[in-house]
Amino acid sequence: MASERSQMVRDHWRSMTEAAVANPGQTPEEVRERVERFWPALTAEPGGVDYLEVEVAGRPALWAVPKGAAEDQVVFSVHGGGGVSGSIYTHRKMFAHLAKAVGARALLVGYRQEAYPVPLEDTTTAYRWLLDQGTNAGHIAVVGDSIGGGLSVSTLLRARELGLPIPAALMLISPFVDMTVSNDTFATNSTNEAFFYKEVVSFLASAYLAGADPKEPLASPLYADLSGLPPTYVQVGEHETLLGESLEFEQNAREAGVDVRLDVFPEQQHTFQMAAGYSPESDDALRRLAEWVRPKIGLG
Amino acid sequence: MASERSQMVRDHWRSMTEAAVANPGQTPEEVRERVERFWPALTAEPGGVDYLEVEVAGRPALWAVPKGAAEDQVVFSVHGGGGVSGSIYTHRKMFAHLAKAVGARALLVGYRQEAYPVPLEDTTTAYRWLLDQGTNAGHIAVVGDSIGGGLSVSTLLRARELGLPIPAALMLISPFVDMTVSNDTFATNSTNEAFFYKEVVSFLASAYLAGADPKEPLASPLYADLSGLPPTYVQVGEHETLLGESLEFEQNAREAGVDVRLDVFPEQQHTFQMAAGYSPESDDALRRLAEWVRPKIGLG
Repeated sequence: MASERSQMVRDHWRSMTEAAVANPGQTPEEVRERVERFWPALTAEPGGVDYLEVEVAGRPALWAVPKGAAEDQVVFSVHGGGGVSGSIYTHRKMFAHLAKAVGARALLVGYRQEAYPVPLEDTTTAYRWLLDQGTNAGHIAVVGDSIGGGLSVSTLLRARELGLPIPAALMLISPFVDMTVSNDTFATNSTNEAFFYKEVVSFLASAYLAGADPKEPLASPLYADLSGLPPTYVQVGEHETLLGESLEFEQNAREAGVDVRLDVFPEQQHTFQMAAGYSPESDDALRRLAEWVRPKIGLG
Repeated sequence: MASERSQMVRDHWRSMTEAAVANPGQTPEEVRERVERFWPALTAEPGGVDYLEVEVAGRPALWAVPKGAAEDQVVFSVHGGGGVSGSIYTHRKMFAHLAKAVGARALLVGYRQEAYPVPLEDTTTAYRWLLDQGTNAGHIAVVGDSIGGGLSVSTLLRARELGLPIPAALMLISPFVDMTVSNDTFATNSTNEAFFYKEVVSFLASAYLAGADPKEPLASPLYADLSGLPPTYVQVGEHETLLGESLEFEQNAREAGVDVRLDVFPEQQHTFQMAAGYSPESDDALRRLAEWVRPKIGLG
């Protein structure tokens, strides 16, 4: 059974639903501000981490540097927020918890929140920038949650197209990888889900696509050729509407020859890892990611 | 009239009141967690600021370093939270906004949340540490909000006792300086106030004093000899129950020969500056502090 502490994630998503119902005319700016103010309230401060802003090709990025972290390894971190919200700040603490557990620096990238392919261009530019700093691709792990998960996959596929070296590992947290918004769990989890109902996700997909084909492989990496991806670890909540696409993604990756692991967390909601430092399920999930990824990036 | 945006501060304090009413048995840990999670949600990210944790005499402290900040000037920052909550993290963004407006680094000090005189010992140790780093007292401004305001005054008085050089300026935001909890505005503002009703403040004062005399000068600096304080600027909200002690403090300071300024912000609540980046009153208040303090610490 889900811990009582993990319910703060469900309560947060419910409050997003309630705000949408109470104020159907809320502007995108109002939604963005609500996300910016209250999503971080799910995450405890990890402590013992320094935060340094840098500009990466004209965009803000944030180094999270745990005390005593390895010098050479980097967790390249792509935040979620449906493509319309979230930032290097909303996800600062969650990715810092992960970086601390891994014992490496995290680089959070602040991509432009515009329609595809703009976000992908920004994450790809940021990945190239990280390589240009002299970082060995074998020492890089990429992580993303929600649409940041989809963007993470696409960034690696795009890097492959461009002939760039591929990072050593990929970690996906409740990834949003299917812009057709058609998986079965939109129906089967409709009463378990607290916010990402089919109409919400359809709205986000439409905004992201802005007319592009919902099966365009780099917008919907569920439909991409996944061969050549590095070892990949997917975490998803059992109560999410996005559960189905994680299951399909895992199958596609496996069939493409990818070394893939999928963990479904009982009764958990979308990106439940945001309750790091408060919820035992969140801490367990981040610990599993860290233990899985450390040897893959040369941290024994 | 108070701006609509500034009402987020009142709404925050009301939600603290509602939580206390709904759950009279809430533990100190629950209160502390609520404060830690939701107080920072009032403050927008300032952006362009790095954050570096340091240990100061065994206690956590946080440098907030705005891009391009002066090297030599420091805003020594003492957070509020009634002596039972709040941290270098709850106040990270507000003091970073101030530091950015001043163009100097801020040092947020994480004192132990125990009864008097422990917090004062920690802030005094941290002030001495800052001097030991080679910082010129003439380049230091001290700022504190709520009980951090009272602690700021007492830190200077204690420094004077110890023969340490006094900083160049003192800024007090809704300072809590009177542990007798007896000023008139507890009555006259009882319907305007959103959380700090007389019984709440009495509880906090009792916990802080733990049996000490409520007129002990370094616990209740309203009763201290204030002569020798540097130029001092007090900001307070018109709708606070703590308004009265700011008025009395200003009068006492003036009579002691201190160069003192007091601004009362119409219809504002306790520590309304926390809504920096969202509320125009907050931004105006921090701008006034910055303009006032810059020449006093050698920043033209």
